[in-house]
Amino acid sequence: MKKIINDPETVVQDALRGMQAAHPDLLSVHYDPAVVVRADAPVQGKVAIISGGGSGHEPLHGGFVGRGMLDAACPGAVFTSPTPDQVLDAVSRCDGGAGALLIVKNYTGDVLNFETAGELAESEVRSVVIDDDVAVKDSLYTAGRRGVGGTVLLEKIVGAAAERGDDLAACVALSERVIASVRSMGLALTSCTVPHVGSPSFELADDEMEIGIGIHGEPGRQRVPVGTASEMVSALLTPIVEDLPFEAGDRVLLFTNSMGGTPLIELYLAHGIAEQLLADRGITVERRLVGPYITSLEMQGMSLTLLRLDDEMIELWDAPVHTPALRWGV
Amino acid sequence: MKKIINDPETVVQDALRGMQAAHPDLLSVHYDPAVVVRADAPVQGKVAIISGGGSGHEPLHGGFVGRGMLDAACPGAVFTSPTPDQVLDAVSRCDGGAGALLIVKNYTGDVLNFETAGELAESEVRSVVIDDDVAVKDSLYTAGRRGVGGTVLLEKIVGAAAERGDDLAACVALSERVIASVRSMGLALTSCTVPHVGSPSFELADDEMEIGIGIHGEPGRQRVPVGTASEMVSALLTPIVEDLPFEAGDRVLLFTNSMGGTPLIELYLAHGIAEQLLADRGITVERRLVGPYITSLEMQGMSLTLLRLDDEMIELWDAPVHTPALRWGV
Repeated sequence: MKKIINDPETVVQDALRGMQAAHPDLLSVHYDPAVVVRADAPVQGKVAIISGGGSGHEPLHGGFVGRGMLDAACPGAVFTSPTPDQVLDAVSRCDGGAGALLIVKNYTGDVLNFETAGELAESEVRSVVIDDDVAVKDSLYTAGRRGVGGTVLLEKIVGAAAERGDDLAACVALSERVIASVRSMGLALTSCTVPHVGSPSFELADDEMEIGIGIHGEPGRQRVPVGTASEMVSALLTPIVEDLPFEAGDRVLLFTNSMGGTPLIELYLAHGIAEQLLADRGITVERRLVGPYITSLEMQGMSLTLLRLDDEMIELWDAPVHTPALRWGV
Repeated sequence: MKKIINDPETVVQDALRGMQAAHPDLLSVHYDPAVVVRADAPVQGKVAIISGGGSGHEPLHGGFVGRGMLDAACPGAVFTSPTPDQVLDAVSRCDGGAGALLIVKNYTGDVLNFETAGELAESEVRSVVIDDDVAVKDSLYTAGRRGVGGTVLLEKIVGAAAERGDDLAACVALSERVIASVRSMGLALTSCTVPHVGSPSFELADDEMEIGIGIHGEPGRQRVPVGTASEMVSALLTPIVEDLPFEAGDRVLLFTNSMGGTPLIELYLAHGIAEQLLADRGITVERRLVGPYITSLEMQGMSLTLLRLDDEMIELWDAPVHTPALRWGV
């Protein structure tokens, strides 16, 4: 295992120290329990938007804490759900009197622990579960579909709604609309290695890729020989489009995501192909996001996410955001 | 070779198509010769800031085209200098009457081809050569030190100066001041594979890392067993600090860069260690940049860059920038 770490047992807290050092103006990091909080929290009168999950998917979620997006993120151990006390701590630090919305990716442990925290919290708390991965029905860590790339778009859009003053019920309703309109799928060219495990999560032959991979290296739909970029993009985009389905005339946000180890030159290349395939179907790409935003440590591979946009979602997507990983209008 | 590409021979132009699709509002991409141009070029009365170099280091340089940074970038083939006609084309598209500054990384081919273009151009053209890598004196592609991470900081700072209206002579003088104040060094945990070569650029054993690696995989100072993150950061930071030298009381920008395949969790971890080591020396980190900004395809590894700041550099660093890879204040 070759990694830039000191000790597999302290990777998460050591990385949090670096995040705090890198973004002193944006973040306030707490270590026991581990919570990344917006520096000016609690914001009075604003719904607190809180998310979290296993570490190893950076910048998700800590990199999305800040104005116009998350009030707090709860980082679990690598690929492990955060505990209820982390979520409770985040709620108590961020509730500015308008309650808190918990954004939960659909994994069994996450759903259970966020739910427990929601029940124990003294604040008014609602939660939404995102399950945008079309690859598989159930999986290693999930009943139902997994939450993946759509989470990034949901956190941005509902974060902007909370920032402009939408109340908790409105934030929940908007979240449900985004969740109903977003679909994703990913592929892996290589595995990743969890630090405290020390060996690759799975094995892929030198000429193989896994289509429909999960963000923890969970199995997908099939292993096939590595093809061309056009074949890869089509293998992801076709099931995504057919699932919702996205149709000619739809306006969409296209999010082309690296799993962590794929360089930007390949990601842009794939993005260009995806734009062309969507144009061929008469689907209009109105907004884009290209980069490593929800990753699986050093895994090489990519995912595509499509969100069907309406005017309000576009306005909220374009609204100012100031976080370590996404920033515009500020 | 596992890559998300269609054809090793067309990787650069295929990726440029994706960049154009992803950033229609920011960039205007030309393909013959290949030049990435700011969408509103030429900006009348503004010095044009132009850079370029081999592809495979994305987002450098095309990702830094836009308001407050570069007017154009000339992407060569992967790890190959751009040709003089690319640079000439960039100059003619971007000169708004105030001349052009060419920012050249110190590699023999780059220096020669940018120099040739400067001589052939009808515009007033000056060039500066950046050579911030303290690892080795000469190398495979260089007489003298190599240009690496400092290039990103130089492009941002001199780009802001041009944007506020500094003339060509002032931009040259500022560039020389930045170049005199910036030092870098990198390390690799894994090699990378150039698409049209198809095999790794070099071999590293499972327990080895290369200290002082170049951004094309050129040999560095030494191969040593993989150590802890603290040992790695110290192995980079000590020679950087001692070279200038940076001294107690200095104010610096610390840039912690991924070589492309290193995940953000490791990069933040390393950044935190570097901040602590600088604090121990009485050096004040005033600004930071953490992420994959000058890469070597999918290479795992990192580099550190330190820039000694003065008030004007801080003002120019903070000035608005709107490019695919760096954006703030807009």
